Parts: sequence; C-alpha cells; structure tokens
Amino acid sequence: MLPIRKTAKQGKRGILERLDAGEIVIGDGGFVFALEKRGYVKAGPWTPEATVEHPEAVRQLHREFLRAGSNVLQTFTFYASEDKLENRGNYVAEKISCQKVNEAACDIAREVANEGDALVAGGVSQTPSYLSCKDKTEVKAAFQKQVEVFVKKNVDFLIAEYFEHVEEAVWAVEVLKESGKPVAATMCIGPEGDMHGVSPGQCAVQLVKAGASIVGVNCHFDPETCIETVRLMKEGLQAAKLKAHLMCQPLAFHTPDCGKQGFIDLPEFPFGLEPRIATRWDIQKYARKAYDLGIRFIGGCCGFEPYHIRAIAEELAPERGFLPEASEKHGSWGDNLSMHTKPWVRARARKEYWENLKPASGRPYCPCMSKPDGWGVTKGAKELMQQKEATTEQQLKELFHKKKF
Amino acid sequence: MLPIRKTAKQGKRGILERLDAGEIVIGDGGFVFALEKRGYVKAGPWTPEATVEHPEAVRQLHREFLRAGSNVLQTFTFYASEDKLENRGNYVAEKISCQKVNEAACDIAREVANEGDALVAGGVSQTPSYLSCKDKTEVKAAFQKQVEVFVKKNVDFLIAEYFEHVEEAVWAVEVLKESGKPVAATMCIGPEGDMHGVSPGQCAVQLVKAGASIVGVNCHFDPETCIETVRLMKEGLQAAKLKAHLMCQPLAFHTPDCGKQGFIDLPEFPFGLEPRIATRWDIQKYARKAYDLGIRFIGGCCGFEPYHIRAIAEELAPERGFLPEASEKHGSWGDNLSMHTKPWVRARARKEYWENLKPASGRPYCPCMSKPDGWGVTKGAKELMQQKEATTEQQLKELFHKKKF
Amino acid sequence: MLPIRKTAKQGKRGILERLDAGEIVIGDGGFVFALEKRGYVKAGPWTPEATVEHPEAVRQLHREFLRAGSNVLQTFTFYASEDKLENRGNYVAEKISCQKVNEAACDIAREVANEGDALVAGGVSQTPSYLSCKDKTEVKAAFQKQVEVFVKKNVDFLIAEYFEHVEEAVWAVEVLKESGKPVAATMCIGPEGDMHGVSPGQCAVQLVKAGASIVGVNCHFDPETCIETVRLMKEGLQAAKLKAHLMCQPLAFHTPDCGKQGFIDLPEFPFGLEPRIATRWDIQKYARKAYDLGIRFIGGCCGFEPYHIRAIAEELAPERGFLPEASEKHGSWGDNLSMHTKPWVRARARKEYWENLKPASGRPYCPCMSKPDGWGVTKGAKELMQQKEATTEQQLKELFHKKKF
Amino acid sequence: MLPIRKTAKQGKRGILERLDAGEIVIGDGGFVFALEKRGYVKAGPWTPEATVEHPEAVRQLHREFLRAGSNVLQTFTFYASEDKLENRGNYVAEKISCQKVNEAACDIAREVANEGDALVAGGVSQTPSYLSCKDKTEVKAAFQKQVEVFVKKNVDFLIAEYFEHVEEAVWAVEVLKESGKPVAATMCIGPEGDMHGVSPGQCAVQLVKAGASIVGVNCHFDPETCIETVRLMKEGLQAAKLKAHLMCQPLAFHTPDCGKQGFIDLPEFPFGLEPRIATRWDIQKYARKAYDLGIRFIGGCCGFEPYHIRAIAEELAPERGFLPEASEKHGSWGDNLSMHTKPWVRARARKEYWENLKPASGRPYCPCMSKPDGWGVTKGAKELMQQKEATTEQQLKELFHKKKF
Repeated sequence: MLPIRKTAKQGKRGILERLDAGEIVIGDGGFVFALEKRGYVKAGPWTPEATVEHPEAVRQLHREFLRAGSNVLQTFTFYASEDKLENRGNYVAEKISCQKVNEAACDIAREVANEGDALVAGGVSQTPSYLSCKDKTEVKAAFQKQVEVFVKKNVDFLIAEYFEHVEEAVWAVEVLKESGKPVAATMCIGPEGDMHGVSPGQCAVQLVKAGASIVGVNCHFDPETCIETVRLMKEGLQAAKLKAHLMCQPLAFHTPDCGKQGFIDLPEFPFGLEPRIATRWDIQKYARKAYDLGIRFIGGCCGFEPYHIRAIAEELAPERGFLPEASEKHGSWGDNLSMHTKPWVRARARKEYWENLKPASGRPYCPCMSKPDGWGVTKGAKELMQQKEATTEQQLKELFHKKKF
Repeated sequence: MLPIRKTAKQGKRGILERLDAGEIVIGDGGFVFALEKRGYVKAGPWTPEATVEHPEAVRQLHREFLRAGSNVLQTFTFYASEDKLENRGNYVAEKISCQKVNEAACDIAREVANEGDALVAGGVSQTPSYLSCKDKTEVKAAFQKQVEVFVKKNVDFLIAEYFEHVEEAVWAVEVLKESGKPVAATMCIGPEGDMHGVSPGQCAVQLVKAGASIVGVNCHFDPETCIETVRLMKEGLQAAKLKAHLMCQPLAFHTPDCGKQGFIDLPEFPFGLEPRIATRWDIQKYARKAYDLGIRFIGGCCGFEPYHIRAIAEELAPERGFLPEASEKHGSWGDNLSMHTKPWVRARARKEYWENLKPASGRPYCPCMSKPDGWGVTKGAKELMQQKEATTEQQLKELFHKKKF
Repeated sequence: MLPIRKTAKQGKRGILERLDAGEIVIGDGGFVFALEKRGYVKAGPWTPEATVEHPEAVRQLHREFLRAGSNVLQTFTFYASEDKLENRGNYVAEKISCQKVNEAACDIAREVANEGDALVAGGVSQTPSYLSCKDKTEVKAAFQKQVEVFVKKNVDFLIAEYFEHVEEAVWAVEVLKESGKPVAATMCIGPEGDMHGVSPGQCAVQLVKAGASIVGVNCHFDPETCIETVRLMKEGLQAAKLKAHLMCQPLAFHTPDCGKQGFIDLPEFPFGLEPRIATRWDIQKYARKAYDLGIRFIGGCCGFEPYHIRAIAEELAPERGFLPEASEKHGSWGDNLSMHTKPWVRARARKEYWENLKPASGRPYCPCMSKPDGWGVTKGAKELMQQKEATTEQQLKELFHKKKF
Repeated sequence: MLPIRKTAKQGKRGILERLDAGEIVIGDGGFVFALEKRGYVKAGPWTPEATVEHPEAVRQLHREFLRAGSNVLQTFTFYASEDKLENRGNYVAEKISCQKVNEAACDIAREVANEGDALVAGGVSQTPSYLSCKDKTEVKAAFQKQVEVFVKKNVDFLIAEYFEHVEEAVWAVEVLKESGKPVAATMCIGPEGDMHGVSPGQCAVQLVKAGASIVGVNCHFDPETCIETVRLMKEGLQAAKLKAHLMCQPLAFHTPDCGKQGFIDLPEFPFGLEPRIATRWDIQKYARKAYDLGIRFIGGCCGFEPYHIRAIAEELAPERGFLPEASEKHGSWGDNLSMHTKPWVRARARKEYWENLKPASGRPYCPCMSKPDGWGVTKGAKELMQQKEATTEQQLKELFHKKKF
C-alpha cells in the first residue's frame, strides 16, 4: 500500500509550477450543492453568503476536501458578483455586502489551505448582467470588484468558471489576467459548445488567447461528457498550435440525457437528482480517463462530496506516489470490507466486485432517462433579464403555463 | 409561512414529557454513513473513533442536524462496545479505549444540544459477542460499560438500537433500564421479523415488557418498509394491551428488493447505494405516513443527511407550528426556485411539480432492482464469530469462492 | 440431438390416459391475443367470431401450435357464450349466432387435430350473466348451450377456464361433467385467491369435488405467479386428501406488479404489453419449474405465440424423448446461430449466453413496473352489469372522470 | 369514422404511378422474424425455403399484411440468393434449389395480391459472396439468377434491400434496372452510413444514379433512427439536385443503444428482443413522422406484425380517406375498449390515454439499454468468409473465446 502523505504546509509551489512539472493537481467539489444539503445554501439563488453567516460550515467542508486530497481550495465565491447577490428578491448585497462575502470566503479558504498542501484560488462566474445584455464595461466591472478582494487577500491564482458564453468568459479572463496571477478558465458547456454555438475547440482558443494558462470545463455535465468536451478543446488548441494546461471539474451526476444546456434542463434539477449521484467507482473511472487524455487539473463540481475527491486521489495514487489523509478511513477498492461482521459483505472486499457492479436504483416506477426542458432561450431573452425584486405571482403563473407538465 | 423557531436552550423537557404530551419529536440521521462520505469513518468496521480523532467533524454534523430540526442528538457511540472496537483487525479499543470514544461522544453531543432545543440520547447497539454466542452475562457487561459512561455524562435518555435479534435487544433494554433513565428500543428488522423468526409484534411486546417506553425500528429498510414494520409492532402491542410510544428511523435508501436481512444483503451495500438515495420529497411522504400511523418519534438512519431531517420538520411544520432554522435556506416544496436565473427552473417552484416527479436514474445500463445475497446465516454461524485479528487472505478466498458472482 | 417425432394421427389416447400414465401434455397458446395481432379479433369484446368469418386464420394458428408441440387444441370458443356475444354493442349472436360460432370452432380444431397427435378440448369461460348476478340456472344454461355443441361435435374433453369466481367455476364444472367427458378447470386467479377471497387451495378443492379431474390456473398472471398459485392449490388438495392432475396456462407477459385481479388492471392492458413479452428462455424456465412442481398439463394463455409453446416442448424434450416438428427450424438454446453470417452472432450459439442474458427494454424513458388500477369492484357492481347496447358517451365520460389519470 | 375500403382487385396502378401522384403506399412487415415465431424459419441462416415447404404459412402471413393495409407484397425471397442458400451448413440450394424457392415465393405473393389492391415486388438482398470479396461479375450473377425468376413470374417492380455496403447495393440496382421494371433500393444503415463509411446522403445519390427510382432504408434500426437516416438521404439528394421517392421500412424494435451495425450487434439479437417490441402507438407516431418528412413508401421490417402495419394505415387514414379491412377488428386509438366487461378498461378507450402511456417492462432486474458488440469487422474479414460447411466446433470455440461475456 502506498503511504499516506502528511501534506506540505510550507514552501508550497504555485499552480503553474506544478502543472508545468507534469504533476497531477486535484481540485475540490462543488460547494453550493454540498452546503445546500447541509442546510446553509439556498437552492434557487445559490449564493455564498454562508461565508459570513456560517463560516464554521464552510470551513469544515474545505477541511474535508483538503483531507480527501484537494490541492486547490476554491474560495466560496460562486455567484458572488454584486448583481447576482441582489437578484430576484435575494437581498444579500444589501444585507451583507458583496465585499464581505468575498472577503470572508478568502479568509476561510486560506485558513484551511494553511493546514495542508493546497493553494487558494479565487473564482468568478457568469453574471446576470451579461444575460441581461449589459455592455462589456459593466460586466467587467462586476468581475473587477471581486478581483480586487482576491488581490487584497492574496489568493494564489484565479479561476473564471461556469460560463455559458465564451464572450463573457473572455471578458472575465481579461479582467483576471490584469491581476498578474495565473488564470484558469472553465466553461459549463458540452460537446455542442456554448449557448451561441461556438464550438469547444474555438472556446478554448479564445480563452487561451485572452490569457488563460489553464482551460477546460466545469459543471453542467457528467464526467464522461465533460471529458469529451475537453477532448474537443484539446483538438482545437492543437489545431491552433496553442498550448495550455487542461482542467476538468464535472458534475457527480449521471446525465446521459442532457441537452445543450446541461443538467439544469433536466426535470430533476435541482431537487430530484439523487438517483444520478455517481459512486466512488464511477469517479475512479473518470479520474483515469481524464488522466489518460492528458488532463492534469482534475476536480469536481456540483454533487462531488469529499469521498468523490478521495476517489480521484486514490485512483491516481500510483502516479502520485501517495494517498490522501482521508484514506486512513478507506481501503482501496473496498478492501476494508474485510473487517465487516457479515461474511457476505466481506466477500465484496475486492476490485473486481465493485468495478463490475451495475447498481440498481431501487425505483421500479421511475425511468432511466428524462426528456430535458429545452426552452432554447439565452442571453437577451425577456425571462432571463435580471430583476432585483422577487419573481411575482403573475410571472410565476406565466411560467407554469408555459411549461408543459 | 410558518415562523422559524429559535429553539429553547434552557428548561428543556424530557423525552417522555414531550411524547406523553403528544408532541412530535424529530430524531437525527445516521452518522456512520454521513461521516464515511466526509472521510472520517471506515466502512467495514463502522466504528466511531472519530469522536476522539476528529471531534470537529462530529460536532459539525450534530450542528447540521440540530439546525435541520432534530430534537434528539444521539451520541455517536454506534458499535462502540468494547468487543466491536477490537474486531477483525480494528484495534480501536487498544489504541484509544472504549471509554474515551464513548465519553468524547457524550461531550460533543451535549455541547451541541446546548445550542438548541435538543436532548442527548446515549445509544448502544448489537454486539459481536452475541453473534459469537457469548452468554447473557458477557453480552450485558458490554452494554454496561457504555451505560456507565452515559450515566456519568448524564445523557437525557437511552436508546438500544440496531438489534437483529430480540433476545439481545431485551438484554440491552434490561441493562439500560437499570440506569433509571427513559429507554427507547429499535430493531433493524422488517415485516418478516427478527433473525430468529420472532414477529415484529412479538418483538415489540418483549421490548416493552423488558422496560422500553418507546419502541420501533431503525436502519436496514426503506421508510415504507419500516413503517409497515412499526404498524405490525403497534398491532402486536394492542393485541397484548401494552402501551408504548412508537419510533421510526429508517434508511434514506429505496430498498424494495430487500430480503429479511435488509440492505446489507443488497449487492450495492455499502459502496453502490447512491442511486437509491431518497429525495427530500420521498422523506416528506415518509414523515406524513409515519405521523398518520401515530409514530411520534420520527427520525432517520443511514443515508439521512441534514436536508432529509429538515424535510421531516417541514412536512410536519403545520402540526408543530414552526419551521427549523435550516428552513431559512429552503422554501417549502421548492418555492425558492422562484429566485432562479433560468425561467424553466422557476417554473418548477411548486409542490405539484415535485410531488409527481419520477426521478430518472441516468443509468440506462443498470437495473431497477437487485437480487439480494441471502446466505441465511446468523448467530452461531462460523463466519459470524468475532475474531480480534484481521480477516486472513485464506478466509477471504473462501468467501469469494462461496459468493456466486 | 433428440429425434423430431412425426406425430401419431390415429389411435390417440385420451387426456386422462396420458396424465394417468405420467405423460407430459402440452397445451396451446391464447387465441384472442394472437389473432388480435393478426387482425381477426377485436380487443374489447374479445369474442371468437373469426371461426365463422375467417376460418383459414384460425386454422393456421391451430396448425402452428400443433407443429410447435401442442397435444391439446382448444376450440376457439373463448367468451362464446350467448350473453357475451351480445354484450355492449357486440352483436355477434344476432349476426352469426352462438351455435355457429361454437360449431365452426369445433370443426376447425378437429380438422387440425387430425393432422397430428393432439386432442380437441371444448372450452367455456366466465359469463357476463354471472357478473350481473343472474341466478345459477340462468348461468348454467349459458354453459349448457355451448356444451351441447361440444357433445354433438364429439370433442375429446372439456375445459372450464378463465373463471374469477370459484362459485361460477363450480357451476360450469357441474354442467360440463354431465356430458360424461373428462373435465379440466382453471381459474384466472393469483395467490390471493378468487374475487370473493376464496383461497387457491379452497378453489381447487371445490372444483375437484364438483367433478374436475384436472385443476389449475390460466391467464391473468405471469408464469412465476401462476406456478405459485398452482402450488397453493396442490397444498389445498393434499390437505383435503383429494387427487387431481395439475394444469398451468399462464400469460407470456411479465407481471410482477400485478394486484389481485391480474394483468387487466395494469395500465398497459391490452395495447401496451409488448415490453413484458416473455422470451423463449423465460418460457423454458417456466416449463422446468412447472414440471418440477408436478404439473403435467403445461400450456399457455394470452401472449403465447407458437414459439413459446415450442420452448416448452424443447425444455421437456429429454423427459418426453422427442422434439416437436417446429424444432426442424430451431436449434436448442440458439445453436442454429452457428449458421449466422456474422461471427459475433455465431458466438451466441450456446446455452450459457441465453440463460444469463438480462434483456434490455430499449425504452429508457419508461419504468420497469406500473401501479395497477385497483377499482376493487366485482360481481354485482353497477359498472359490471351486462348491457346489450354499446357503452354510451355519457357512461364513458363517467368512467374517464373516475379514473385518475 | 372513415370507411373501410374494399380494395381494388383489378386495374391496379403501378408503384411509380401511385407515388408520382402523391399517394401513400404502405409496405408490409418482415417475414423472417414473423415466420420464425410461427415455426417456419430458422434463425441463423434466415432463409425462405418455407415458400416450398410450408406455402400455407407464407400465404397466410401475406394475407394478414394485405388485410392490414399493405399495398406492396414483397416476395418472400430474402436471402434467397444461391450462395446464401448453401452457406454454413444450410443446404437449401442443394435440397430444394434456389429457383424453386424464388418461384414459389412469386406465386404465393401474386395469389394473395390478386385478392386486394396490392402490388408484388421481387426482392434481392446482400450476399455472402460480396462479404467474401467475390468480384462484381460473380455478385451480379447471383442477383441475376433471382431477377430471371421475377421477370418470368412478372412481378410488378423490384426492390434491392438490406444492403450494408453501397457498392454492393449499386451492383444490385444495376442488375435489377436491366429488367425494365421500376427499382427501389434500401440499405440497412443508420445515420453513420454504410460499413465502408459512405454517408447516407452519398449512398442515396449513388443508388439513384445507378437507376433506383425509390430509395431509403430498411431493417437494422428503430423507426426514429431510420427516419433520421432517410432525412440525411433526402438532404444528400437535394444537394445533388437528384429526385427520387423516399421509402422507409424500419424494425419494430426500440434500438436507441445501437452502434453503426444496428440491432444484430445488440446482445439481445435475435432471441431476447421481446422487451424492445414497438407498440401500435409507437408505430402510429412513426407513420406520422415519416409522412411529415415526405416519405410516401412507408412499411416495416423485422418485428413488424400485421397489427403494426395496420397502425400505419390507421394513422394515415385521414390522408388516404379510408381504413384497411383489418380495422373491422380495431377501433381507432383503442375505442373498442368501450365494449370491455371491466369498467376500468373501458376508461382506457381514448387517444389521450394510449398516447401518453409509458409502458413498463415488468423486468425490474433488467436494464433499459445494452452495450452492443462492436467487433468492427466487415467485408474481407476472415470470419465473414462464406463457407458451405457448417461452422465447426473449433471455429465456435474461437468465437466464444473472442467474445467477452
């Protein structure tokens, strides 16, 4: 068995040093879904005010990912742009302030990163302003406001993530790049490309040209689909003779039935996704495939719990030479089941068993796939416009009517 | 909308006072599964040494359940009898000591219980000694050792839970009863009864006669099956003209395909259960059915995350008159989705939508049900004997061979 | 390989001679479903006027079953009682006459039976008169009218089949018995018993006491459920120290989700049952299990096509010593696939392959099980009353409204 | 309700007259699968010697399709080329002769066609010679031998069908074209194109250039996939400014999980396809979609039973102005269920019910999709070579070994 490495706490090397050296960098999992289940994030707005309201819960989740093997702790600043914090009746900006939410996120991430061998990455994501057709200056100003906090708090590098439109992602990268810190950029797109029809290859090219050193995808699709999308990005970069590190942070949900817009179109989003949750073995397969394609920044997004990140670290332990701390509590491929009281469970303590298992859903009245909604609206559509006030009853009624149920 | 109640921190009433008054008492969820996913518990032995090794992780989980609405915080002392702590290569008793694990569990639970309106319940569970045919005195001594800690730490009441054989459960209740504290007793059985063929009704009768004030089931089966089992217990008690409060703490996994021994027989146990995880809506249905049957101590076991407990508290909020703290981050039946950026997701902000959803598994190559293992061995079988040393390679090989794969 | 037997055309032995000698007698399949798919029977009334209108189609189907191995050709007289032929707008009695339909059925069956080693069995089934609470005399008169034809046409024996109420079945057996011919009786019930709650064991006892030499079940449930029901009948007879031959003619549809009233309650009945159709391998398993239980009259009902009957004959060929004619065109367990052009299909020419196959539905948007309708109405309910005239629009509207869709 | 048309028996117009006039022409269903289930065709070789051995069975199936609405009766000459009739131990050519099989097929088809408004189409299909790399002259000679019979028997037009390689299909069309009769050509390909990678559009172009007046696809894929393939053919023809009538004869099996080679790669082929069988409602949807795309020769292939063809005729009855004879026994969208004895079944007598039904498989232990075999071998591969003698035990063993099971 490989050793469990007590992680370096000092003299940590930067993200590009690691990737340039060919190291595997393990990302973390999605905070909004994990903390929603723990009771600290509201599904709908999905904003991260928990950094101020419940720092102990955010801190604990960071610790679990660190322990599971993460080398990057992303500040919990998802959707923490000022315009999103005050969207549709979510008065976080007013009650707490955009700056405080972002600052607290940096402080917590740094505190935990100091406990092990992890870097802190400040993150920005797509904005309601862009969907509402605000101009480039205004959208960039929203990113700028967050970046100022990241610079002040001296995060190790920056990530522009969860962009549906490459145009907005490029704007974000441009803002981030000015900080002088390394920039990673991931889009939440599938093989069909962005919402304006730009192909993954072209998206990657534009992001690298805008200044990203690391490109890839995050969220919206399952590991298999995300790897295919990164493969198309890699091809696009090769064709354009550009170089960049590759990154992948997919969902931990199976989504073979998704359309172009990913899992938010699935009828199960966000409160019925449980049957789609990936097992640790699914994630080990993902980690291996990602590695084989040449992806070296390998993490997760919504649905990833600490044990999913540990699965990445365990699958790639032979390449890395060590196991994460949380493997103290986990045998490779189920071998701790040899300690189970019941003999038929001990008989499952082997790789062959888990690798071949086709897990049943226990739901004989439910189907295997769903037809996604496909409203086909994006940037500029009336219903996508930002509004500060809560959605009205009348607006809801119109939507209920529009939706074929 | 009902008010969110800031919970009473002082002058809390005891478990029987509440139940006798007809109140609903909400339990918590299963710690071993939740903490295994967070990286602190080893699947296989399933023992709770995290109380000493990682108290912050245990504390955080207690807090999340409290915030979700739990009125009872069970000490994380599952499988914390001395014989289990030193079983099959798990040298916890040796390295840490049974007493310290139990004490730390009490301290953490009390600390968090003090933050809200929750009681602390000390818990004991089935022992390897019983399966190994140790005599009554020896088995009772194992329980006694834990109870001494509970008395010293002054927990509010005691639970004997997760018993497969009513004979052992009765022994446990007898020991617990001597403490003078109220005693609850739950078995991990289904409608077919205990491993020796004693019916649920008979089990309930024996437990009440032994001194339990609250009886029911926990673990091993899904909510629907557990409710059916409690119904049979209720019938048994009525037939015997006995009175007791009813309690139910099922799995948060769908297990329609289980045999007599419950979910540990399913091929997916324990590392492929994800597709079976209950949604919050499944749990609301469970809470309502449990209430309608007259169960007033309603909680969960393995698979229950804080949001599942919150679902119980939200479903029964009309009866209780208030919502739990964690509902600050959760609208009833998805109504916070009215704050979502995408209009087709806002169109899901209604009870009718979620109540009728048949969630897809996203796994078209997997079945809906599995054939459970059914080795049909129990107390006294050679392979069930306790052994301090790790399972040997040879022992494993014999098991692999025995298991038709 | 076993020889294909050119079947005896003369000197055929009677049904009881065969069964008393311990021989396996193979029944045929359900005509109404098979001929509905061929375009000759109307789903809804399910009456057999095709015997007059399209005798060549009926003849061909008899021939196919004979060739597949059937030793019994049932006259196509299902639902051919006078009251059923003029029910709810189905004016067959008026247009053709009950007598002609029954006579033609006898003639066709005899013609084909003469081509091989098969007997002709005249059959009667449940009547609308019984459901409409007509008295014993009137119901018996309906059977009597059909039996007169059977006697005149000199069928070899008689079957009372497809009875939901043992009371009516006993009346039928009494009428049939008077003919002096051997009588078989099968009910379309499951393990829960008849619609009045009489257990399978009790049903069997009453039928034998009324004069049936052969008892069992037909239709309404899948092979597994039917075998279980016959097992209960066998137990009932043993307990009552009665002797009778056992018979089983199940559906060729998988119906694990049926309630008490069987497959007509399933939402898929009758036009969406395709995904439930049994494979030939399913039927071989059924034949083996039926044989092992001691059933010696083994056939099928709705859904059985000639190749399903051939599967029974092939599975039991070792016991019988020969194969049916149709096995000229079928290798045991797929071995003719060795003649396939494509090598990967030739690789499927083996028992192990087909025995273990879990066939996919190809329908990822559909569930595995359905919730059956369960209106809980039977004999005497208003909506079950016979009416000569077509169901009115108003009557239909009331039903649509009543049905939760 | 539309009238049921007694079909024209004399003065029938030719295939091109009908199609040029914009009429809908309804094809028939696949004979090898239907007659295999009836006991007259051997799965593996799939050859049509039943025309000589059991003409009454072939005649009856033709009649059923005619009655269901078919305007074209294809001679049962599938795989009736001399080389296929003597392949891998199938000594039909030797025992009966290629000529007799083809002649009998023509006679039977003509006899039945004379009973209604149907044309007779002589058909040829792919040959083992082509797969074995025989040269163009030799392959064409095989087709020529069949065409001579078709000319002698004066069929109404010719169909080259079930070709996996456009090169061979073009050769077939060239031979057929010389007869002076109208030629239709269909390939058994999906959207990925032929086995050599020629796109559907290119295939269509080549077939029309070779002389086909009607082009499309048959077999190997489900209706949805076939329609998509024909759509690509249509696009290809439009791009090449070529005109041809479109034709579609898909499987009646759901095959969303097929790879390039279609359903023979699925593990269920050919003996476990039952759960995939289309309902009549699935076929009505297919007929509508085919019509909407501009396809006017609409039929079926393997899996189509007479009631499936009737479903096409019923769906398109409004456009055609009449119903087929078999609709005497079938109400539109289930309306004859108003005659059912049970009220809850009468409540299903409406389009809305059947249109929305998601039929369950009744197989909770089976998946929804399968991974197809994908050996990736085609023309020229050693294992695809024709051999007159039966596959040897040794050859089979090698295949079993090669197949991962």
